[in-house]
Amino acid sequence: MPKFMDVHHGMTGLTPEKFNEAHQADLAIQSEEGVTFERAWADTESGDVFCLSDAPSAGAVQRIHERAGHKADEIHPLTLSL
Amino acid sequence: MPKFMDVHHGMTGLTPEKFNEAHQADLAIQSEEGVTFERAWADTESGDVFCLSDAPSAGAVQRIHERAGHKADEIHPLTLSL
Repeated sequence: MPKFMDVHHGMTGLTPEKFNEAHQADLAIQSEEGVTFERAWADTESGDVFCLSDAPSAGAVQRIHERAGHKADEIHPLTLSL
Repeated sequence: MPKFMDVHHGMTGLTPEKFNEAHQADLAIQSEEGVTFERAWADTESGDVFCLSDAPSAGAVQRIHERAGHKADEIHPLTLSL
């Protein structure tokens, strides 16, 4: 399964609780698109959020994020991983 | 130890061999700044590279990347991780 890194900009004001809620909203529906979010990280100063996933396509990742209320600004296919 | 995600833009033309060489150049000297690079990923179409590290500071991460010949364009402190 391809891996993706998606990036959200401008998610300022995240608390640990809000960040967890947003991630749980993805996890709750991810199987409907065959997506598995592995990790998520936030830089709470800049408001940048990074999500690592296994997914059939970038579109599948975006559909989950959109339905969960936080569309990604970038979705990168990770053609090389170390 | 704080975690960081650094991002390099414009690293086009990466092959698996070149990407591994670049990562190994970081690993070879990372201990001199107390940095541990955990993972690295590349989107070979856009030329964006993402590196996940444990490090004492963003400056420590950048000094390793600079000495290895590939200065990062962004270094994000990961204040929240899931």
